[in-house]
Amino acid sequence: MSNPEVSIIMGSDSDLQIMQAAAYMLEHFGISYELSIVSAHRTPERMVEFAKNAADRGIKVIIAGAGGAAHLPGMVASITPLPVIGVPVLSSNSIDGWDSVLSILQMPGGVPVATVALNGAKNAGILAASILGASDPAIRNKIADYKSTLQKEVDEKIKK
Amino acid sequence: MSNPEVSIIMGSDSDLQIMQAAAYMLEHFGISYELSIVSAHRTPERMVEFAKNAADRGIKVIIAGAGGAAHLPGMVASITPLPVIGVPVLSSNSIDGWDSVLSILQMPGGVPVATVALNGAKNAGILAASILGASDPAIRNKIADYKSTLQKEVDEKIKK
Amino acid sequence: MSNPEVSIIMGSDSDLQIMQAAAYMLEHFGISYELSIVSAHRTPERMVEFAKNAADRGIKVIIAGAGGAAHLPGMVASITPLPVIGVPVLSSNSIDGWDSVLSILQMPGGVPVATVALNGAKNAGILAASILGASDPAIRNKIADYKSTLQKEVDEKIKK
Amino acid sequence: MSNPEVSIIMGSDSDLQIMQAAAYMLEHFGISYELSIVSAHRTPERMVEFAKNAADRGIKVIIAGAGGAAHLPGMVASITPLPVIGVPVLSSNSIDGWDSVLSILQMPGGVPVATVALNGAKNAGILAASILGASDPAIRNKIADYKSTLQKEVDEKIKK
Amino acid sequence: MSNPEVSIIMGSDSDLQIMQAAAYMLEHFGISYELSIVSAHRTPERMVEFAKNAADRGIKVIIAGAGGAAHLPGMVASITPLPVIGVPVLSSNSIDGWDSVLSILQMPGGVPVATVALNGAKNAGILAASILGASDPAIRNKIADYKSTLQKEVDEKIKK
Amino acid sequence: MSNPEVSIIMGSDSDLQIMQAAAYMLEHFGISYELSIVSAHRTPERMVEFAKNAADRGIKVIIAGAGGAAHLPGMVASITPLPVIGVPVLSSNSIDGWDSVLSILQMPGGVPVATVALNGAKNAGILAASILGASDPAIRNKIADYKSTLQKEVDEKIKK
Amino acid sequence: MSNPEVSIIMGSDSDLQIMQAAAYMLEHFGISYELSIVSAHRTPERMVEFAKNAADRGIKVIIAGAGGAAHLPGMVASITPLPVIGVPVLSSNSIDGWDSVLSILQMPGGVPVATVALNGAKNAGILAASILGASDPAIRNKIADYKSTLQKEVDEKIKK
Amino acid sequence: MSNPEVSIIMGSDSDLQIMQAAAYMLEHFGISYELSIVSAHRTPERMVEFAKNAADRGIKVIIAGAGGAAHLPGMVASITPLPVIGVPVLSSNSIDGWDSVLSILQMPGGVPVATVALNGAKNAGILAASILGASDPAIRNKIADYKSTLQKEVDEKIKK
Repeated sequence: MSNPEVSIIMGSDSDLQIMQAAAYMLEHFGISYELSIVSAHRTPERMVEFAKNAADRGIKVIIAGAGGAAHLPGMVASITPLPVIGVPVLSSNSIDGWDSVLSILQMPGGVPVATVALNGAKNAGILAASILGASDPAIRNKIADYKSTLQKEVDEKIKK
Repeated sequence: MSNPEVSIIMGSDSDLQIMQAAAYMLEHFGISYELSIVSAHRTPERMVEFAKNAADRGIKVIIAGAGGAAHLPGMVASITPLPVIGVPVLSSNSIDGWDSVLSILQMPGGVPVATVALNGAKNAGILAASILGASDPAIRNKIADYKSTLQKEVDEKIKK
Repeated sequence: MSNPEVSIIMGSDSDLQIMQAAAYMLEHFGISYELSIVSAHRTPERMVEFAKNAADRGIKVIIAGAGGAAHLPGMVASITPLPVIGVPVLSSNSIDGWDSVLSILQMPGGVPVATVALNGAKNAGILAASILGASDPAIRNKIADYKSTLQKEVDEKIKK
Repeated sequence: MSNPEVSIIMGSDSDLQIMQAAAYMLEHFGISYELSIVSAHRTPERMVEFAKNAADRGIKVIIAGAGGAAHLPGMVASITPLPVIGVPVLSSNSIDGWDSVLSILQMPGGVPVATVALNGAKNAGILAASILGASDPAIRNKIADYKSTLQKEVDEKIKK
Repeated sequence: MSNPEVSIIMGSDSDLQIMQAAAYMLEHFGISYELSIVSAHRTPERMVEFAKNAADRGIKVIIAGAGGAAHLPGMVASITPLPVIGVPVLSSNSIDGWDSVLSILQMPGGVPVATVALNGAKNAGILAASILGASDPAIRNKIADYKSTLQKEVDEKIKK
Repeated sequence: MSNPEVSIIMGSDSDLQIMQAAAYMLEHFGISYELSIVSAHRTPERMVEFAKNAADRGIKVIIAGAGGAAHLPGMVASITPLPVIGVPVLSSNSIDGWDSVLSILQMPGGVPVATVALNGAKNAGILAASILGASDPAIRNKIADYKSTLQKEVDEKIKK
Repeated sequence: MSNPEVSIIMGSDSDLQIMQAAAYMLEHFGISYELSIVSAHRTPERMVEFAKNAADRGIKVIIAGAGGAAHLPGMVASITPLPVIGVPVLSSNSIDGWDSVLSILQMPGGVPVATVALNGAKNAGILAASILGASDPAIRNKIADYKSTLQKEVDEKIKK
Repeated sequence: MSNPEVSIIMGSDSDLQIMQAAAYMLEHFGISYELSIVSAHRTPERMVEFAKNAADRGIKVIIAGAGGAAHLPGMVASITPLPVIGVPVLSSNSIDGWDSVLSILQMPGGVPVATVALNGAKNAGILAASILGASDPAIRNKIADYKSTLQKEVDEKIKK
């Protein structure tokens, strides 16, 4: 896929099952994306290169998912000027997900990560769309439509 | 301030001391903003009106801070198509901040809130800037400059 | 069911399996109820309408169940003068239920929610009955009888 | 005070500073109350007597506050058919309030306690009023007025 | 069983599977015991009677197991001068066991409960034996023998 | 003090301020005790010697207080056949006391520690007395008297 | 195995499934090791002997795994001058692993344990190798090679 | 200081007050060290350079302290083959230290960090010494002496 607007990265291929929900939402909104593995701990230099070049490659938003002591979102955010959305992934041997949640959320002053819920990759995709929609009325309208759809789904369930 | 790009809202005037750090960062980046009190629990209808009209008023990003059972960021996010940044504020009688962190972070699928660290209003301001910078190279450059400044400050401290 | 006294609402149809225990207890006490889906995050305006009209429709007590960042009970409580009972539901991707418990319990001063245990819908039903019983001796007697029954059940188990 | 409608009890006189906020709210709504010390652990038989007789004395709602391993609200609820509101109090040597919150909230099926936030005695008073208001339109109107006042206070703060 | 030295009580028959490990250990040490259901919340008066009479019936140690908001051990301890051992039981809908652990452990000054680990009924049985052994050298020797056995079991596993 | 019945040990002299409450209670009940520093981590061999000899020296109950990764109560319990009461002490740099509570409470099957509340040394003293009272009616009566005193103190506070 | 450099010990044979990952990594790096059961609570004197003699036997690093109230790593560290790596093992009836993590990590000043992640025996093996590598360039090179391998594995997954 | 054996780094100069305890212990053992600020989030490239070159500069052990979402120890460990000791520092706006503890401890398989207690810089210094002592009997003897000193200090306190 050439020239994507959103880059979805994850620390391990075991995170893919969770993270692909972000890709599904971007497809729903017609937003181009790439999806790859970038590990803070196993490929630190690749991660630095990725973060340094992302903006120049035309990427506008980065979604980064990781579990345990999850350093990927925060490290990428320390290098790129782009907004970084962090997805805490519940990994095996996690202490109930607290490790990934706190490792991603509690960033020091100066380096924000836009954190979503545990395993909240779907919401990361929607948030990326709304970030693009901040200056693109067409996307913003699609998000407004999506929220209407949520409402209609509830309405239909109520009838049942 | 007419026609601001970012709206900073908070649940109570007691949150102001924390939340003004978001305003300072927006000023640093030369981004217009408004700052007001909108309480999910004490002014629910005002909150709905605020959320419904924000996009039409030209707001592009919303920063919402709240403590305890912090419903403001998530409720606003349920109504507006704009990106909403949530700031968990450590209020009195909080259970160590866990209540506001989890009330803001753990949003259900479909309605994301971009959550930052406990009392992380400074980072909310930077994140709002980076969201605007996703499609505005001038702002993106300012953020890149800001991150260079962080580095230089460390360099100077090392010399000492 | 016309003119119910208790309204049981929940954020999602996935909460129904838990929440129907409230309905069973109300049936046990012969109290009329309605049961519906009202989502704070997917149908926020429907929620506001529901909360505004509940008292005028003759509802006397509201039972609201929700999981994750559970805003439904607190938001309804912010609008209605009726007593609102909140049931934290353990949803998938919850952080052990802490999110729904704290989102419902830790309401700010001025807007109480009567919170029961995690997945405690049965107790929500009994509590609603006891609230009606506060000014209705017939219901109060039924609750006293119910508590005697609990005792007898234990007595029979002891014999075994 | 003869024939009060609400009984406020607490496990220790050290809880009084927190618990009197419940009394203030009841006074605000013009609801009669009594206030006393009943300790589950130091005066268990007095507690049983209290709980057995409360309904016959004309009490309609009980507010019980306690800290640490807080057994008072649940034990009273196990005996009386009246609705019991539990206030977790943050005591010295508490583990951040988790002990009193969980001891009051996590009641087994059959014996509900209407739990409010940590140190949330003010909300306990309002909740007691709303319980009485469930079948008393005059009180219900006062609560609606109170919620309007909350809104007006915010409006005035916004002007500042 | 006439004239037992240890009384094992539990809040619900669902606790039996866990609590019988206490009985097995008492049998191992040749200590007489009784085993019954006494619920703080469903049979509060039976509980008070039990606690008041235990010492006069010749009981020397009480083992009480309960889950969730576990009030049984502490309430019994508030009435009897006998040592009470509390066993936090992991019940369904527990918040990871924290509720029963804190409800039993965090007793206020004046009313101790000798708390053992979550689901630690086996250790409750051994602790009861060691309490009797405090003034009975024969039992104390059996406990010393038991601890030697633990050591021998490890030694045999090492050989494997 | 010759031939004491209870030995109070603690991991550090900084625990003394908390632990002396155990001594006060033993004095109240007229029970002889010794009080010393035995550190699991700084004097491990002294600890082993202490635990091996305690029963032979006539000690009947051991009270052990420690903070942080608190190994003293459990290690002593692994060696002595005597009942060991563990007091979790809130030390500096503790993570809210959770470390000492869990290090003392969560002992494996076979080696119980009778754990009391965080900083609950007063209750450790009372529990030691009730353990001796299990086979000594005179002490048991003193404990019953003490519990009556608690009740009277509450009664007097109520009058005020 | 004669004259091993690393000693892997664990509190129970039930820890073996987790702990053998440490052995696998040491084999990978060609480092000699022994593997045995040493229980702090069931074989305390064997533990003291082990810790006293380890350095004289030529052991250079100790890896100790344990669950629940995990005292083995810290107790061994209190006796030996060798570096001790602690592995918190998630045992049955653990409170989500918090007990073993905090019992191993939160050692008092003077007696460090090098703690790795919950069930992190693999990392304990690598850490032992890097400790030996601190003064052995051949081992250090193997570890550098291992980290390159991690990178290559990610690279290959990316291609897929 | 030329050619140090241990490098102490920290994420911020605000960590210095805590981290200098590591330096004091290294001085006590006569081990050369350097002390500097290396921030994962503000100077990520400096951090990569530091980690890449540390072994070649003759550094044998790295001590890294950081607070909040503490990525410094783990990121350095991902690059260097040297053993890395992580010190979780309790920073302002931390959630009770849990964030730094879990961000440092819960590293994924392949990249260990030797974690010490919250604010445990003193122990980090001792651990670094014991790592060097693994292949240097002179240092090992100094550590054994140090542990004897701890014992003597306790002995003197006992006399008092």
